[in-house]
Amino acid sequence: MKRCYQVVGEWMKAAGLSVSIDNAGNLRGVRSGVVPGKRVFLMGSHLDTVRDAGAFDGILGVILAIAVVENLPNVPLPFDIEVIGFSEEEGVRFNLPFIGSRALVGTLDEHAVAVISPALREFGLDPAKISDVKLKTPPIGFLEFHIEQGPILEHVNESVGLVDAIAGQTRATLKFTGSANHAGTTPMHLRQDALAAGAQWITIVEHIACTTPNLVATNGKIELQPNLGNVIPGEVTVSLDVRHSDDEVRENACALLRHSAAHIAAERMLTLSWTETLNQRSVPMNDSLTRKLETAAPQGIRRMVSGAGHDAMILAPYIPSAMLFLRSPGGISHHPAESVLPQDVDLALSIGQRFIESLAIEYKS
Amino acid sequence: MKRCYQVVGEWMKAAGLSVSIDNAGNLRGVRSGVVPGKRVFLMGSHLDTVRDAGAFDGILGVILAIAVVENLPNVPLPFDIEVIGFSEEEGVRFNLPFIGSRALVGTLDEHAVAVISPALREFGLDPAKISDVKLKTPPIGFLEFHIEQGPILEHVNESVGLVDAIAGQTRATLKFTGSANHAGTTPMHLRQDALAAGAQWITIVEHIACTTPNLVATNGKIELQPNLGNVIPGEVTVSLDVRHSDDEVRENACALLRHSAAHIAAERMLTLSWTETLNQRSVPMNDSLTRKLETAAPQGIRRMVSGAGHDAMILAPYIPSAMLFLRSPGGISHHPAESVLPQDVDLALSIGQRFIESLAIEYKS
Repeated sequence: MKRCYQVVGEWMKAAGLSVSIDNAGNLRGVRSGVVPGKRVFLMGSHLDTVRDAGAFDGILGVILAIAVVENLPNVPLPFDIEVIGFSEEEGVRFNLPFIGSRALVGTLDEHAVAVISPALREFGLDPAKISDVKLKTPPIGFLEFHIEQGPILEHVNESVGLVDAIAGQTRATLKFTGSANHAGTTPMHLRQDALAAGAQWITIVEHIACTTPNLVATNGKIELQPNLGNVIPGEVTVSLDVRHSDDEVRENACALLRHSAAHIAAERMLTLSWTETLNQRSVPMNDSLTRKLETAAPQGIRRMVSGAGHDAMILAPYIPSAMLFLRSPGGISHHPAESVLPQDVDLALSIGQRFIESLAIEYKS
Repeated sequence: MKRCYQVVGEWMKAAGLSVSIDNAGNLRGVRSGVVPGKRVFLMGSHLDTVRDAGAFDGILGVILAIAVVENLPNVPLPFDIEVIGFSEEEGVRFNLPFIGSRALVGTLDEHAVAVISPALREFGLDPAKISDVKLKTPPIGFLEFHIEQGPILEHVNESVGLVDAIAGQTRATLKFTGSANHAGTTPMHLRQDALAAGAQWITIVEHIACTTPNLVATNGKIELQPNLGNVIPGEVTVSLDVRHSDDEVRENACALLRHSAAHIAAERMLTLSWTETLNQRSVPMNDSLTRKLETAAPQGIRRMVSGAGHDAMILAPYIPSAMLFLRSPGGISHHPAESVLPQDVDLALSIGQRFIESLAIEYKS
């Protein structure tokens, strides 16, 4: 990670940025405007990634921000531009995602600070000063470039898309408990098969997701007890992940799914437990900033919802934020095969430049 | 296990039996008839059980056989009676079930003999002589008492039942392979969700089993890849266990289930693999011997199919065999809570005695 900061820091310097690392581990590069420190526009994404990942998730947004600054005409702008390479967005090391962006808006809690302090110290930073990372004056806005990490843009054969909102998300764990019994000696009408109930419910989850526009619902994890070929399953535990940009649609779908599970349990004389582990509201991007980005983009650029969380989701409640997605070939991410197409990167770069130029005109006047 | 042979051997001796252990580890007790060694009738079940088991699976059939002999009038019968406590029916130690009963009918293969030889030697037996265990002269028949290990007799409030046949059995492993993808960024119409396919198929398995009289079909085991809450399952592996006393019914059901799986895979653009791991034909009990047992039982005794395998299943192709099931409270077996009701044991004992008495009359004449 130190080598990453060194290399990216050199690239920032080469683009004319003044580089520092704040006490949350964010790599920050500033190009001063006409009146340094008066107003600032932020661009960037995260430096970290998951294990066995590809080469674009996060870092592409940092590099594109540096490239936008690098390509700007060599005249002072009416605002500073600060490129931020956020630390620890993925949450791999501490199971605490968005550490850098949370520090920037002051939403890191004491527990998180305590957990990460030893690593900050080891990196040469001062955790006692992490609260100073919180921005003092409100920035003009924040722009994040990121790979889509999904198949939508590729499916419609488009290079880039504008993010309207980060989807809200419910995660829950459902458990049906029946009776484990001998698979050979228990007739069908005397069974309390937990997996049969689980399977019935999973088909309903898929059906409701497919018939509710733009809803996604996933049963990604399943655990059986005792999980033996010749024993009727006595217990099944299934994960549920539901996302939508409209919180009401998401919560209605979850209520319906919970009702269906209760109905199945009652009909089959099983017990049901339902534990909601996450209920995260949808985060809209800033409408005015997004429209400016739209103006800088080719006509007809698609608006889309991000099903995954991003640093922009953390900043958006405090700072006007916009996001541009780049097509992910094969929809592949968090995998070494993750990639981007050079022409999509070219287009994103030129949109970023036109966007900053139009912002400069607006703030000059 | 040595202590078990010692204790049960003492009980055999107390009942007037001449006790020996054969080279397959079967505990054998003979009560000679009028002409010793001329004809023999076999009774018994197995001595071993599973781990964390109850106190009745197997051993009850040995003890009941001893008790039947013990209660017979002290006059010579027209045939010998041999009580056998079979070794290693469950297959716990070597994953090779029915060792004792297979040795008796000569169906232990070389591989099995090689695997169990060290344990036989350690027990003081001679594996080189295991082929001598095979019966030289055909016995009159074999009677096995066993707990039902299922809920049927309890459900109809009956003490005992006659086994018509041991169900034939198919075991198979099905695998749907789709694509693992991000649960948040992949819209429903662009998914190849292996678990959604698996769940659809499991509901069909249950439906076909419930609508085919006396068929049981179980999906007892399921494995997902990658099995993470926020990732669409790329692969699901599901076990299938199908049993029926009529092999044609079972094989038709399996063909239909396989066809359904192929249809689901095609519709969802997944790949399907189907591996049959067991195809075991149904084993009928001997009709004439079973009718004799029926005559010895109270009127209206239920005929039933055994969904589980038993030593009688191994002997039946070579020796006329009959089985009497005793009710299992709660349908519980292979569990410390396994039990039997004293009045059911009394009834089984008196049926056994009447059965031997009627057999003695038949063979005397």
